[in-house]
Amino acid sequence: MSESDRNAWIRGLRATRSFTDVPIPEQVLARILEAGRWTGSSLNSQPWTFIVVIDPASKLALAGTGRFSAHVGGAAVVVVLVAEAGRGEFDIGRAAQNMMLAADALGIGSCPATLHDQEAVRQLLGVPDNRLARHALALGYPDHDVEATVRENMRTVTGSARKPISEIVRTDRFA
Amino acid sequence: MSESDRNAWIRGLRATRSFTDVPIPEQVLARILEAGRWTGSSLNSQPWTFIVVIDPASKLALAGTGRFSAHVGGAAVVVVLVAEAGRGEFDIGRAAQNMMLAADALGIGSCPATLHDQEAVRQLLGVPDNRLARHALALGYPDHDVEATVRENMRTVTGSARKPISEIVRTDRFA
Repeated sequence: MSESDRNAWIRGLRATRSFTDVPIPEQVLARILEAGRWTGSSLNSQPWTFIVVIDPASKLALAGTGRFSAHVGGAAVVVVLVAEAGRGEFDIGRAAQNMMLAADALGIGSCPATLHDQEAVRQLLGVPDNRLARHALALGYPDHDVEATVRENMRTVTGSARKPISEIVRTDRFA
Repeated sequence: MSESDRNAWIRGLRATRSFTDVPIPEQVLARILEAGRWTGSSLNSQPWTFIVVIDPASKLALAGTGRFSAHVGGAAVVVVLVAEAGRGEFDIGRAAQNMMLAADALGIGSCPATLHDQEAVRQLLGVPDNRLARHALALGYPDHDVEATVRENMRTVTGSARKPISEIVRTDRFA
Protein backbone atom coordinates (compact mmCIF):
# COMPACT_ATOMS: atom_id res chain seq x y z
CA MET A 1 0.00 0.00 0.00
CA SER A 2 1.44 3.37 -1.00
CA GLU A 3 1.84 6.29 1.39
CA SER A 4 -1.15 7.90 -0.22
CA ASP A 5 -3.28 4.77 0.25
CA ARG A 6 -2.23 4.40 3.86
CA ASN A 7 -3.10 7.99 4.63
CA ALA A 8 -6.44 7.70 2.85
CA TRP A 9 -7.15 4.55 4.88
CA ILE A 10 -6.35 6.28 8.19
CA ARG A 11 -8.42 9.33 7.30
CA GLY A 12 -11.30 7.17 6.08
CA LEU A 13 -11.89 5.12 9.22
CA ARG A 14 -15.47 5.61 10.42
CA ALA A 15 -17.27 4.29 13.48
CA THR A 16 -19.61 1.31 13.02
CA ARG A 17 -22.49 0.89 15.47
CA SER A 18 -24.51 -1.91 13.84
CA PHE A 19 -23.23 -5.46 13.84
CA THR A 20 -24.29 -8.83 12.46
CA ASP A 21 -24.56 -11.93 14.66
CA VAL A 22 -21.41 -13.42 13.14
CA PRO A 23 -18.93 -14.07 15.95
CA ILE A 24 -15.33 -12.88 15.72
CA PRO A 25 -12.99 -15.89 15.48
CA GLU A 26 -10.55 -16.12 18.36
CA GLN A 27 -7.46 -15.72 16.15
CA VAL A 28 -8.94 -12.62 14.53
CA LEU A 29 -9.68 -11.05 17.91
CA ALA A 30 -6.13 -11.93 18.96
CA ARG A 31 -4.76 -9.82 16.09
CA ILE A 32 -6.82 -6.83 17.19
CA LEU A 33 -5.66 -7.17 20.79
CA GLU A 34 -2.04 -7.44 19.61
CA ALA A 35 -2.40 -4.07 17.88
CA GLY A 36 -3.47 -2.66 21.24
CA ARG A 37 -0.71 -4.43 23.11
CA TRP A 38 2.04 -3.07 20.85
CA THR A 39 0.89 0.55 21.09
CA GLY A 40 3.46 2.97 22.42
CA SER A 41 2.81 4.60 25.78
CA SER A 42 4.37 7.14 28.11
CA LEU A 43 7.71 5.69 29.31
CA ASN A 44 6.47 2.34 27.97
CA SER A 45 4.15 2.15 30.99
CA GLN A 46 1.44 0.24 29.06
CA PRO A 47 -1.16 1.56 31.53
CA TRP A 48 -3.96 -0.68 30.25
CA THR A 49 -5.91 -3.83 30.88
CA PHE A 50 -8.27 -5.06 28.17
CA ILE A 51 -11.38 -6.86 29.41
CA VAL A 52 -12.84 -8.88 26.54
CA VAL A 53 -16.56 -9.04 27.25
CA ILE A 54 -18.34 -11.86 25.41
CA ASP A 55 -21.08 -12.75 27.90
CA PRO A 56 -24.34 -11.47 26.31
CA ALA A 57 -25.87 -10.35 29.62
CA SER A 58 -22.73 -8.38 30.48
CA LYS A 59 -22.70 -6.70 27.06
CA LEU A 60 -26.32 -5.63 27.51
CA ALA A 61 -25.64 -4.37 31.01
CA LEU A 62 -22.59 -2.42 29.77
CA ALA A 63 -24.73 -0.81 27.07
CA GLY A 64 -26.72 0.78 29.89
CA THR A 65 -23.74 2.32 31.66
CA GLY A 66 -23.14 5.12 29.17
CA ARG A 67 -25.35 7.89 27.86
CA PHE A 68 -24.63 7.00 24.21
CA SER A 69 -23.50 3.38 24.47
CA ALA A 70 -26.51 1.43 23.20
CA HIS A 71 -24.41 0.05 20.29
CA VAL A 72 -22.31 -1.88 22.80
CA GLY A 73 -25.21 -4.27 23.41
CA GLY A 74 -25.20 -5.54 19.83
CA ALA A 75 -21.45 -5.98 19.46
CA ALA A 76 -19.90 -9.41 18.92
CA VAL A 77 -17.22 -8.49 21.44
CA VAL A 78 -16.79 -5.49 23.71
CA VAL A 79 -13.27 -4.62 24.78
CA VAL A 80 -13.34 -2.53 27.95
CA LEU A 81 -10.18 -0.45 28.17
CA VAL A 82 -9.14 -0.15 31.77
CA ALA A 83 -6.66 2.57 32.70
CA GLU A 84 -5.04 3.41 35.99
CA ALA A 85 -7.20 6.01 37.76
CA GLY A 86 -5.98 9.56 37.08
CA ARG A 87 -3.60 8.69 34.25
CA GLY A 88 -3.32 6.85 30.97
CA GLU A 89 -6.36 8.24 29.13
CA PHE A 90 -4.17 9.58 26.32
CA ASP A 91 -2.35 6.26 25.93
CA ILE A 92 -5.64 4.33 26.11
CA GLY A 93 -6.87 6.49 23.24
CA ARG A 94 -3.76 5.60 21.23
CA ALA A 95 -4.34 1.88 21.85
CA ALA A 96 -8.03 2.20 20.91
CA GLN A 97 -7.15 3.85 17.60
CA ASN A 98 -4.63 1.11 16.80
CA MET A 99 -7.22 -1.57 17.56
CA MET A 100 -9.87 0.18 15.45
CA LEU A 101 -7.50 0.32 12.48
CA ALA A 102 -6.39 -3.29 12.97
CA ALA A 103 -10.05 -4.35 13.15
CA ASP A 104 -10.88 -2.40 10.01
CA ALA A 105 -8.06 -4.13 8.12
CA LEU A 106 -9.74 -7.40 9.12
CA GLY A 107 -13.18 -6.29 7.90
CA ILE A 108 -14.44 -5.67 11.43
CA GLY A 109 -16.24 -2.50 12.41
CA SER A 110 -15.83 -0.72 15.72
CA CYS A 111 -17.05 2.18 17.76
CA PRO A 112 -15.75 3.53 21.06
CA ALA A 113 -18.20 4.12 23.88
CA THR A 114 -17.87 6.22 27.00
CA LEU A 115 -19.10 4.37 30.10
CA HIS A 116 -20.25 7.21 32.35
CA ASP A 117 -21.55 5.13 35.28
CA GLN A 118 -18.25 3.91 36.68
CA GLU A 119 -19.84 2.44 39.80
CA ALA A 120 -22.00 0.16 37.64
CA VAL A 121 -19.07 -0.85 35.42
CA ARG A 122 -16.87 -1.57 38.44
CA GLN A 123 -19.49 -3.81 39.97
CA LEU A 124 -20.35 -5.58 36.71
CA LEU A 125 -16.76 -6.39 35.72
CA GLY A 126 -15.06 -6.48 39.12
CA VAL A 127 -12.84 -3.49 38.36
CA PRO A 128 -10.96 -2.23 41.45
CA ASP A 129 -11.26 1.37 42.68
CA ASN A 130 -7.76 2.32 41.57
CA ARG A 131 -8.66 1.73 37.93
CA LEU A 132 -10.80 3.67 35.47
CA ALA A 133 -12.95 1.71 33.01
CA ARG A 134 -14.37 4.72 31.22
CA HIS A 135 -13.81 3.63 27.62
CA ALA A 136 -14.90 0.57 25.66
CA LEU A 137 -14.66 -0.57 22.07
CA ALA A 138 -17.63 -2.31 20.45
CA LEU A 139 -16.45 -4.73 17.76
CA GLY A 140 -18.25 -6.83 15.17
CA TYR A 141 -18.84 -7.50 11.50
CA PRO A 142 -20.79 -4.49 10.15
CA ASP A 143 -24.49 -4.84 9.40
CA HIS A 144 -24.26 -2.54 6.41
CA ASP A 145 -28.01 -2.08 5.81
CA VAL A 146 -28.81 -1.06 9.37
CA GLU A 147 -25.57 0.91 9.67
CA ALA A 148 -26.55 3.28 6.84
CA THR A 149 -29.69 4.28 8.76
CA VAL A 150 -27.95 4.47 12.13
CA ARG A 151 -25.20 6.64 10.69
CA GLU A 152 -27.75 8.94 9.09
CA ASN A 153 -29.52 9.29 12.46
CA MET A 154 -26.25 10.04 14.26
CA ARG A 155 -25.52 12.71 11.69
CA THR A 156 -28.61 14.63 12.70
CA VAL A 157 -27.29 14.66 16.29
CA THR A 158 -23.57 15.22 15.89
CA GLY A 159 -23.01 16.18 12.29
CA SER A 160 -20.57 14.22 10.16
CA ALA A 161 -18.39 17.08 9.08
CA ARG A 162 -14.99 17.91 10.44
CA LYS A 163 -13.97 21.40 11.49
CA PRO A 164 -11.86 23.10 8.82
CA ILE A 165 -8.09 23.12 9.24
CA SER A 166 -8.16 26.90 9.67
CA GLU A 167 -10.28 26.44 12.81
CA ILE A 168 -8.22 23.72 14.50
CA VAL A 169 -4.65 24.49 13.47
CA ARG A 170 -2.63 27.46 14.80
CA THR A 171 1.03 28.40 14.27
CA ASP A 172 3.36 28.97 17.23
CA ARG A 173 0.64 30.40 19.49
CA PHE A 174 -2.91 29.44 20.44
CA ALA A 175 -4.45 32.83 19.84
CA MET B 1 -1.11 -3.54 1.36
CA SER B 2 -2.65 -6.75 2.69
CA GLU B 3 -4.41 -7.03 6.03
CA SER B 4 -1.36 -8.76 7.40
CA ASP B 5 0.95 -5.99 6.20
CA ARG B 6 -1.31 -3.31 7.60
CA ASN B 7 -1.40 -4.98 11.00
CA ALA B 8 2.35 -5.49 11.00
CA TRP B 9 2.77 -1.81 10.15
CA ILE B 10 0.51 -0.69 13.02
CA ARG B 11 2.21 -3.01 15.50
CA GLY B 12 5.65 -1.99 14.32
CA LEU B 13 5.37 1.77 14.85
CA ARG B 14 8.10 2.94 17.24
CA ALA B 15 8.82 6.34 18.74
CA THR B 16 11.63 8.39 17.18
CA ARG B 17 13.41 10.94 19.37
CA SER B 18 16.36 11.99 17.15
CA PHE B 19 15.79 14.12 14.11
CA THR B 20 17.87 15.55 11.28
CA ASP B 21 17.83 19.26 10.41
CA VAL B 22 15.76 18.62 7.27
CA PRO B 23 12.57 20.67 7.47
CA ILE B 24 9.17 19.08 6.85
CA PRO B 25 7.65 20.52 3.66
CA GLU B 26 4.38 22.34 4.24
CA GLN B 27 2.32 19.94 2.09
CA VAL B 28 3.75 16.95 3.97
CA LEU B 29 2.88 18.47 7.34
CA ALA B 30 -0.58 19.20 5.98
CA ARG B 31 -1.12 15.48 5.33
CA ILE B 32 -0.17 14.64 8.91
CA LEU B 33 -2.52 17.29 10.30
CA GLU B 34 -5.33 16.00 8.06
CA ALA B 35 -4.94 12.54 9.64
CA GLY B 36 -5.47 14.20 13.02
CA ARG B 37 -8.35 16.28 11.78
CA TRP B 38 -10.26 13.26 10.44
CA THR B 39 -9.91 11.23 13.62
CA GLY B 40 -13.17 10.13 15.19
CA SER B 41 -14.14 11.58 18.56
CA SER B 42 -16.86 11.30 21.15
CA LEU B 43 -20.08 12.58 19.55
CA ASN B 44 -17.88 14.06 16.81
CA SER B 45 -16.87 16.76 19.30
CA GLN B 46 -13.35 17.11 17.81
CA PRO B 47 -12.14 18.46 21.15
CA TRP B 48 -8.73 19.53 19.85
CA THR B 49 -6.64 22.41 18.65
CA PHE B 50 -3.25 21.68 17.08
CA ILE B 51 -0.58 24.31 17.66
CA VAL B 52 2.16 23.84 15.08
CA VAL B 53 5.31 25.08 16.77
CA ILE B 54 8.11 25.96 14.32
CA ASP B 55 9.83 28.83 16.14
CA PRO B 56 13.18 27.40 17.37
CA ALA B 57 13.13 29.28 20.68
CA SER B 58 9.62 28.04 21.43
CA LYS B 59 10.60 24.45 20.65
CA LEU B 60 13.54 24.67 23.05
CA ALA B 61 11.38 26.25 25.74
CA LEU B 62 8.73 23.53 25.28
CA ALA B 63 11.41 20.87 25.69
CA GLY B 64 11.91 22.17 29.22
CA THR B 65 8.26 21.93 30.25
CA GLY B 66 8.15 18.14 30.61
CA ARG B 67 10.20 15.74 32.68
CA PHE B 68 11.06 13.57 29.65
CA SER B 69 10.55 15.97 26.76
CA ALA B 70 14.10 16.87 25.74
CA HIS B 71 13.52 15.34 22.27
CA VAL B 72 10.99 18.08 21.54
CA GLY B 73 13.82 20.61 21.25
CA GLY B 74 15.35 18.85 18.26
CA ALA B 75 12.15 18.25 16.31
CA ALA B 76 11.54 19.87 12.94
CA VAL B 77 7.99 20.62 14.05
CA VAL B 78 6.24 20.19 17.37
CA VAL B 79 2.49 19.79 17.31
CA VAL B 80 1.01 20.70 20.68
CA LEU B 81 -2.32 18.92 21.13
CA VAL B 82 -4.67 21.16 23.05
CA ALA B 83 -7.74 19.58 24.63
CA GLU B 84 -10.58 21.15 26.53
CA ALA B 85 -9.72 21.04 30.24
CA GLY B 86 -11.20 18.00 31.96
CA ARG B 87 -12.16 16.13 28.79
CA GLY B 88 -10.87 14.90 25.48
CA GLU B 89 -7.63 13.18 26.55
CA PHE B 90 -8.82 9.87 25.08
CA ASP B 91 -9.76 11.49 21.77
CA ILE B 92 -6.51 13.46 21.70
CA GLY B 93 -4.68 10.14 22.07
CA ARG B 94 -6.61 8.76 19.10
CA ALA B 95 -5.67 11.79 16.98
CA ALA B 96 -2.02 11.52 18.04
CA GLN B 97 -1.87 7.88 17.00
CA ASN B 98 -3.38 8.69 13.61
CA MET B 99 -0.86 11.49 13.08
CA MET B 100 2.05 9.25 14.12
CA LEU B 101 0.98 6.59 11.62
CA ALA B 102 0.40 9.15 8.87
CA ALA B 103 3.85 10.61 9.57
CA ASP B 104 5.46 7.17 9.49
CA ALA B 105 3.89 6.49 6.08
CA LEU B 106 5.61 9.68 4.91
CA GLY B 107 9.01 8.65 6.31
CA ILE B 108 8.72 11.00 9.27
CA GLY B 109 9.46 9.91 12.82
CA SER B 110 7.53 11.07 15.84
CA CYS B 111 7.38 10.82 19.59
CA PRO B 112 4.75 12.08 22.00
CA ALA B 113 5.81 14.13 24.98
CA THR B 114 4.00 14.94 28.18
CA LEU B 115 4.26 18.63 29.10
CA HIS B 116 4.00 18.58 32.88
CA ASP B 117 4.44 22.32 33.55
CA GLN B 118 1.11 23.57 32.24
CA GLU B 119 1.65 27.08 33.58
CA ALA B 120 4.81 27.42 31.49
CA VAL B 121 3.15 25.97 28.37
CA ARG B 122 0.14 28.28 28.78
CA GLN B 123 2.34 31.33 29.02
CA LEU B 124 4.64 30.29 26.17
CA LEU B 125 1.87 29.50 23.67
CA GLY B 126 -0.92 31.72 24.93
CA VAL B 127 -3.18 28.79 25.82
CA PRO B 128 -6.25 29.88 27.83
CA ASP B 129 -7.05 28.41 31.26
CA ASN B 130 -10.00 26.38 29.98
CA ARG B 131 -7.71 24.29 27.79
CA LEU B 132 -5.19 21.58 28.57
CA ALA B 133 -1.97 21.47 26.54
CA ARG B 134 -0.53 18.40 28.22
CA HIS B 135 0.50 16.43 25.13
CA ALA B 136 2.75 17.23 22.19
CA LEU B 137 4.06 15.36 19.20
CA ALA B 138 7.67 15.85 18.11
CA LEU B 139 8.02 15.32 14.36
CA GLY B 140 11.00 15.14 12.02
CA TYR B 141 13.03 13.04 9.64
CA PRO B 142 14.80 10.39 11.76
CA ASP B 143 18.50 10.72 12.46
CA HIS B 144 19.02 6.96 12.33
CA ASP B 145 22.57 6.87 13.72
CA VAL B 146 21.80 8.91 16.81
CA GLU B 147 18.41 7.24 17.19
CA ALA B 148 19.96 3.79 17.65
CA THR B 149 21.91 5.05 20.65
CA VAL B 150 19.04 7.07 22.10
CA ARG B 151 16.71 4.09 21.80
CA GLU B 152 19.24 1.84 23.51
CA ASN B 153 19.52 4.34 26.38
CA MET B 154 15.73 4.58 26.73
CA ARG B 155 15.59 0.81 26.90
CA THR B 156 17.68 0.77 30.03
CA VAL B 157 15.14 3.13 31.64
CA THR B 158 11.79 1.85 30.42
CA GLY B 159 12.46 -1.52 28.82
CA SER B 160 11.39 -2.14 25.25
CA ALA B 161 9.29 -5.21 25.88
CA ARG B 162 5.53 -5.33 25.99
CA LYS B 163 3.63 -7.07 28.76
CA PRO B 164 2.41 -10.52 27.66
CA ILE B 165 -1.19 -10.87 26.49
CA SER B 166 -1.92 -13.07 29.52
CA GLU B 167 -1.09 -10.12 31.79
CA ILE B 168 -3.13 -7.44 30.03
CA VAL B 169 -6.15 -9.33 28.65
CA ARG B 170 -9.00 -10.69 30.81
CA THR B 171 -12.27 -12.31 29.80
CA ASP B 172 -15.59 -10.94 31.06
CA ARG B 173 -14.20 -9.80 34.42
CA PHE B 174 -11.18 -7.84 35.60
CA ALA B 175 -10.10 -10.31 38.29
